[in-house]
Amino acid sequence: MRPQDFYTSETSIRFARRLWVKWLRAAAEEILSGAQKAIEEMDESQVETMIQLLLGAKDKKIFVVGMGRSGFVGRAFALRLMNLSFDVYFLGETITPAAGEEDLVIAISGTGMTKLVISAASAAKEIGAKVVAITSYKESQLGQMADQLVLVKGRTKMGWPREEDYLARQILGEREPISPLGSIFENNCMVFLDGLIVELMYRMKKNENDLRSRHATIE
Amino acid sequence: MRPQDFYTSETSIRFARRLWVKWLRAAAEEILSGAQKAIEEMDESQVETMIQLLLGAKDKKIFVVGMGRSGFVGRAFALRLMNLSFDVYFLGETITPAAGEEDLVIAISGTGMTKLVISAASAAKEIGAKVVAITSYKESQLGQMADQLVLVKGRTKMGWPREEDYLARQILGEREPISPLGSIFENNCMVFLDGLIVELMYRMKKNENDLRSRHATIE
Amino acid sequence: MRPQDFYTSETSIRFARRLWVKWLRAAAEEILSGAQKAIEEMDESQVETMIQLLLGAKDKKIFVVGMGRSGFVGRAFALRLMNLSFDVYFLGETITPAAGEEDLVIAISGTGMTKLVISAASAAKEIGAKVVAITSYKESQLGQMADQLVLVKGRTKMGWPREEDYLARQILGEREPISPLGSIFENNCMVFLDGLIVELMYRMKKNENDLRSRHATIE
Amino acid sequence: MRPQDFYTSETSIRFARRLWVKWLRAAAEEILSGAQKAIEEMDESQVETMIQLLLGAKDKKIFVVGMGRSGFVGRAFALRLMNLSFDVYFLGETITPAAGEEDLVIAISGTGMTKLVISAASAAKEIGAKVVAITSYKESQLGQMADQLVLVKGRTKMGWPREEDYLARQILGEREPISPLGSIFENNCMVFLDGLIVELMYRMKKNENDLRSRHATIE
Repeated sequence: MRPQDFYTSETSIRFARRLWVKWLRAAAEEILSGAQKAIEEMDESQVETMIQLLLGAKDKKIFVVGMGRSGFVGRAFALRLMNLSFDVYFLGETITPAAGEEDLVIAISGTGMTKLVISAASAAKEIGAKVVAITSYKESQLGQMADQLVLVKGRTKMGWPREEDYLARQILGEREPISPLGSIFENNCMVFLDGLIVELMYRMKKNENDLRSRHATIE
Repeated sequence: MRPQDFYTSETSIRFARRLWVKWLRAAAEEILSGAQKAIEEMDESQVETMIQLLLGAKDKKIFVVGMGRSGFVGRAFALRLMNLSFDVYFLGETITPAAGEEDLVIAISGTGMTKLVISAASAAKEIGAKVVAITSYKESQLGQMADQLVLVKGRTKMGWPREEDYLARQILGEREPISPLGSIFENNCMVFLDGLIVELMYRMKKNENDLRSRHATIE
Repeated sequence: MRPQDFYTSETSIRFARRLWVKWLRAAAEEILSGAQKAIEEMDESQVETMIQLLLGAKDKKIFVVGMGRSGFVGRAFALRLMNLSFDVYFLGETITPAAGEEDLVIAISGTGMTKLVISAASAAKEIGAKVVAITSYKESQLGQMADQLVLVKGRTKMGWPREEDYLARQILGEREPISPLGSIFENNCMVFLDGLIVELMYRMKKNENDLRSRHATIE
Repeated sequence: MRPQDFYTSETSIRFARRLWVKWLRAAAEEILSGAQKAIEEMDESQVETMIQLLLGAKDKKIFVVGMGRSGFVGRAFALRLMNLSFDVYFLGETITPAAGEEDLVIAISGTGMTKLVISAASAAKEIGAKVVAITSYKESQLGQMADQLVLVKGRTKMGWPREEDYLARQILGEREPISPLGSIFENNCMVFLDGLIVELMYRMKKNENDLRSRHATIE
């Protein structure tokens, strides 16, 4: 059977296409099963403590910090917290007030070694704020300094040849690995944090209608 | 059996904890199974055409555009494309050159109704650039104007009381729904686009070592 | 006298250099004298009303909005307002709460025709918030809709071939004019708004030490 | 003469208003005369070398870096360089390729002590790129490491109690001084860099029409 025969029917074209994007499918599969496993393996007491810290910070300020892809995930989480009427900020944006005692910092770093995130977390601790670290490495500098660790698997160690500031890494072109493995921490975090928002929503007895009502925002 | 009895053993505490974060688990489950279904149902010929357009734009400029959470997903995708040495830009950042004929615009909008995304896409078409629309709605304005539609399910119609610019929506406080349903389009996109990067990597015969090598960036 | 003779002494080299960067000097001169004239010609009752609106919004939210270079000037102003402990936001950043009645929007647009700024201002008015327009054109759409106009000269009419969204303009490559004239509105605004911060500081009896004290931020 | 008498005529109201915003006027005066003096005192050979480095990087990549208000000024400068068709990037934005040998980094820091800027500059040097430092302090770490120093007066030493990363400073609430003095470096830089763009424009024989022509961007 020659290739041209093979591609004559709609079915076989569809089959061939399936082959064409097989890497996409394989990667998506790996991402999704990885995320499922990561969520299952999370330590619920860590998550519960993080929830209590968030609920306890209802009248305090919450700061989210992360760089690169962890930063995008962090921003999406911060947006949702704001929708739940938390007083939340993303570090590095123009408008960020100073932190105070008992404020809460959510620091996201797969390796737990991102310098900017570590220095922000350590400034926060100095001032008396609480730090929750979301990382794949308990023993990392970020993991060790945090008041509460939340382990999310997925970040491979291969990481960085050495510790560098984020802007220095941009200059040097040392990027995160781009295999599916390289994204798994951020994907796992996104699923975890989206789920966490739903959990918070139920705990706070909010529902979507409350949140979407404009009257709420005017008063 | 009284509650205090129930919580005496480590097992039952673990069980109780599982109950505590049950909404998180349910939401994560819904996100992941939704994403799996969305990827399975994608039209491979749409994806294949998008891949060909991307590969064909290797010596052209690629522009990614999206607002809010779609913007975060778009930025993460743009980062990866840059790692694969595409000449890519994210609209709205400081540095964005003008588009030209045959350049490529990747427009991401779940509803296909985001005004800024539509006006950017329509400016691109006018100039002779190609537009790929990633949306849940084929019949939306964005879906209709695109040169190539890539349907990613997940965005519910409930959407917006009316069309508004993004900054106007910030002022009005009309946000996207925050249930797991409300995030599903962006989550599905993230999995799809991460998978797409892996597919591109194989098609272009890049592997991670190539990408991480610093020598490559110096020459 | 031959060129080589001309350039033998330190003095003449210095003189030659002065010629070399003569356009820089001429442009700087034009920017500075233009700014001085613009500030002198400002209508003080407009400025005074803006000050009263700002002071009256001490317990309200303040939103600053502007695109491109006006956006950078707006962000710098927002930063300073935050330092003076106003509750201020820059539209378009991740974290922006909804506006409410009696909140204040500071909209910056030289032409008064920037679509995103206009749609944000009009959403604000609809909700009952007050809008201050900083623009060169009283008769522009933004100037007409504002509760308070603050005229800052400097933006030339040559402006845009047509009205477009900011992202569409990025795609089309239609940029602001880059002669010194083209920057004068933003430069004038920067001087005006920096001066306004000092004025507010005195009215509010703040001094720098108050603002820099860390204790203030902890309590 | 009683106050009510004083305020009866239009003239005296105007006079009173002048008193009301006297701090604004004084600050604007200080900013503008400070900027004029700073530009006059600039070392033209430093400026000329910077111009030559920029012109020499026409086929190379240019990276601009700065934090906070210096970042806004840097972004405005980067925008203008892009309009002049330089291949320019602002560090910290999503899309930033790796630097290579002979690329150019323009680092802006009044104190010359901003850690992120220093680490980016030092990464650039390591890779063989050239660094231009725009700072008020020749003897600062940034000033010392740069291939070319461009002194712009205006930043007072009072600066920071200690060196900190930018995000850590956001957390700590240690901000730049907000008196007119505190802004003078950034204002001076804005005037200098806007003037520099005009100088480059003449050197490159560009005029506004070239830059605004859309055909140029399509081909």
